Amino acid sequence: MADEENAYTFATAATRHIKLENLGEGGFRMWRGDCLAEVTLAYESWGELSATADNAILIFTGLSPSAHAASSPQDSSPGWWEYMIGPGKAIDTDRFFVVCANSLGGCYGSTGPGSVNPETGENYGADFPDVTVEDIAASGFLLMRQLGVEKLHAAVGSSMGGMSAIAYAMRYPDHIDNLISISAATRALPLTIALRSLQREIIRSDPAWNGGRYADDAKPLVGMSLARKLGLVSYRAADEWNSKFDRSRVAAEKLTGERFEREFEIENYLEYNARKFINSFDPNSYLYLSRAMDWFDIAEHGESISDGMSKIEIERALVVGVTTDILFPSRQQKEIADVMRATGTDVDYVEIDSVNGHDAFLIDDAHFSPVVRKFLDQSID
Amino acid sequence: MADEENAYTFATAATRHIKLENLGEGGFRMWRGDCLAEVTLAYESWGELSATADNAILIFTGLSPSAHAASSPQDSSPGWWEYMIGPGKAIDTDRFFVVCANSLGGCYGSTGPGSVNPETGENYGADFPDVTVEDIAASGFLLMRQLGVEKLHAAVGSSMGGMSAIAYAMRYPDHIDNLISISAATRALPLTIALRSLQREIIRSDPAWNGGRYADDAKPLVGMSLARKLGLVSYRAADEWNSKFDRSRVAAEKLTGERFEREFEIENYLEYNARKFINSFDPNSYLYLSRAMDWFDIAEHGESISDGMSKIEIERALVVGVTTDILFPSRQQKEIADVMRATGTDVDYVEIDSVNGHDAFLIDDAHFSPVVRKFLDQSID
Repeated sequence: MADEENAYTFATAATRHIKLENLGEGGFRMWRGDCLAEVTLAYESWGELSATADNAILIFTGLSPSAHAASSPQDSSPGWWEYMIGPGKAIDTDRFFVVCANSLGGCYGSTGPGSVNPETGENYGADFPDVTVEDIAASGFLLMRQLGVEKLHAAVGSSMGGMSAIAYAMRYPDHIDNLISISAATRALPLTIALRSLQREIIRSDPAWNGGRYADDAKPLVGMSLARKLGLVSYRAADEWNSKFDRSRVAAEKLTGERFEREFEIENYLEYNARKFINSFDPNSYLYLSRAMDWFDIAEHGESISDGMSKIEIERALVVGVTTDILFPSRQQKEIADVMRATGTDVDYVEIDSVNGHDAFLIDDAHFSPVVRKFLDQSID
Repeated sequence: MADEENAYTFATAATRHIKLENLGEGGFRMWRGDCLAEVTLAYESWGELSATADNAILIFTGLSPSAHAASSPQDSSPGWWEYMIGPGKAIDTDRFFVVCANSLGGCYGSTGPGSVNPETGENYGADFPDVTVEDIAASGFLLMRQLGVEKLHAAVGSSMGGMSAIAYAMRYPDHIDNLISISAATRALPLTIALRSLQREIIRSDPAWNGGRYADDAKPLVGMSLARKLGLVSYRAADEWNSKFDRSRVAAEKLTGERFEREFEIENYLEYNARKFINSFDPNSYLYLSRAMDWFDIAEHGESISDGMSKIEIERALVVGVTTDILFPSRQQKEIADVMRATGTDVDYVEIDSVNGHDAFLIDDAHFSPVVRKFLDQSID
C-alpha cells in the first residue's frame, strides 16, 4: 500500500535544537501581537556553508513534516523530501548548504503548543499564542542569522511552506536572492478554509481534546484520525484513486460482518494512513498550523495582493503548480507567478501534470526534480 | 444567506402513507438478502393520473429530501424541487401525474431505521437491514403499481435518485418508457466512497450514536453536524464560494476571542446550514442511505457496466451532468450516456455549465428547467 504522504519520520540523530537569539524586547514578537519569551527551533542541515555564506537554501515545510527532510550521515532514515535533497540531487548538497527547520508551532522539537510555558511550568496547550505563516518565516530568518547566513541563496517551500517562503521574501527583501514556491497560495480561499476549519472542529469535538489540555496517553486520537482522513482526501486526486483503488474490496475473510465496517480498499487506505499519523503528531500543533494557513493573505502586507508582493526584491522565482491539486489549485500558482512578474520579478512558472494532487511534490520525483534542478542550476550561472 | 440545499422541508399536510402490498413470500426481499415484513412509503403526488395511466412520472430523491418535492393545494410550503414541478413548469403537473416518495430507509415517513421493528416493538436502529439503491427502486415500483400505474412515462432522479432511476430501468424494463438521470453515477468511485465513509465514521464516532441506539432527545448531533458540513463541502464548487464568500470575515462584534472560533463567513455558512439539518434528519437513515450509494454498481446487474445497462429497454433518456460537480463528475454522466447509447437507447446528453456543483439541480432553475422541459415535451410528441 502506497503511503508516501506519511513518510514524515521524526529522527533525532541529525536534529539540532537552537535557542533563537536577538528576539527583541519582550521576546519573539508575533505577527498577531503576542510575544514568546523563548523560541527553540529544531533543524537539520546538509552540505557546507561556503566561506562567503552565499550558498544557503532554507526549506520551509508543509503542515506536518519534521526537520528531517533528507537522510544524512548522522541519520540514514529517509526524510520527507528524500528524492529532492542530497549529493547530486536537484537540491544538491554538494553545492548548497541546505537547512530545514520544524515549523514554529510544530511538534518535532520546535517551540509549540506542546512545549512548556516558562511562565507556568505547564505545556502551553491552547494557551500558545496565535501562530502565523509570517511567524514561521521570522523564526527561519533568525535561525539563518544564527547559522551565519545574512542572505539566503533561496527559500524553498511547498504548501504551507510555500506561503512561508513568500512571507520570508516579503518580510526580508534584503535577505534573499531566489524563491521556489510550490503549490502555495497568495491567500487561503473559502473551500480550503472550510476543509481546514472542519478538520479543526473535528479534533476539538473529540471529548479527549478537553480544551487543549490532554495527557500524552489520552490524546484526542479519534478526532485526529478523522481529521487526518479528511486531510488525505483533500491532498490527493480523484483519478489517482480511481486507478489505484477503483472499487477494490477488502478481502472477505477480513470482514467481520459488523454494520458499516470498512468494505472498500480506499477505506482501509485512509485508516492505515491515519493510524500511522495520529500517534506521531500533536493535536494542538495541528490546530495552530492549520489555522495559520487560513489566515495567510499577501494583501495584509500592503494595500492589495499586488502591493504586498511588490515588497519582494528577489532576482528570480520558480513557481510550480499541479493540475490535479484541488486544495491549492494551479490557478492560484499562476496568480502568484503573474503578480510576481507584474511587480518586477523574473519568474519561471511551471504547471506539472501529475496525478498526485496537492501531495505531488512529496512523491513525483520524475516531474519535480528536473524543474527544481534547472532553476537552481541557472541561479548560480 | 443562501441555503437552497437545505430547503428540504418535511410537511405532512400533503403526505400520504401507503403500506406496500404484494411483497412476496416472507415480505419485501431486499437486494442484499434480508427481508422486511412490512414496508410503508410516505409519498406526495401532483396532477391527475390519465384514464390510460400513461402519464406517470416517478421522482427519486437524493440522500436527504422528503417526499415534499413541490407545493400543492394541500401544502403550500415550497418543496425541495419547487422550481421544477408544478402547473406549467418543466415537470408539468397539468400534464403529468407526478409522484415523489421518501426513500425506503429514510426518515420522513417511509420505513427506515427509525421505524418500529414489528418483531421487537423497538426502533430498528442499526438492526435495520442493508438498504440499497435497488431496494429504493423496488419500493417505488410497488408504490406505482398500487397507485394504478403499470408503466412509468418517466423515472426522474438526481444524485442518489439518479442511481435509483437507473436501477428502476434495469430491474423493471417493461415498466418504464423514459428516464431522466441527473448527476448520478454508473458506480461509486473511491473519492466519493472516501467522502461518504468519512461522514459515516464521523457520526458513528460521536459517543451519542451509541451503536445506533439513541433517544430522540440524545441524538449524535455533534457527529451529524460535522458530517453534514463535510457533505456540504462536497456538494458545492470552489468558484461559487470564491465569489460568494471570498475571505469575508465574521463581524468583529460577533467574535468572542475564543481560540479557533469561526472567523470567516464560510465557517458561519457551514455552521448555519448544519444546524438547520441535524435536528430534522435521523442519523441512522443518513448512515444507511449514504452506504447505499457506495454499493451501487451497474456492473452488479450483469457481467459489466455495459451488460447491466443493456437490460434497460426505455425509448429515450436524458442524462445531465454539471461541469463543477466534484462528487458525481460530469465525466461519469458522459459515461452513463455513452453506455446507454451503446446498448441501444436514444440519449440526450447535456452538460450544464453551472457554478453550483453537485447541488446545481436543486438551485439552478435557469439551466435545468429548459433541459428537462424540452425532453419531456418531446417525450409526448
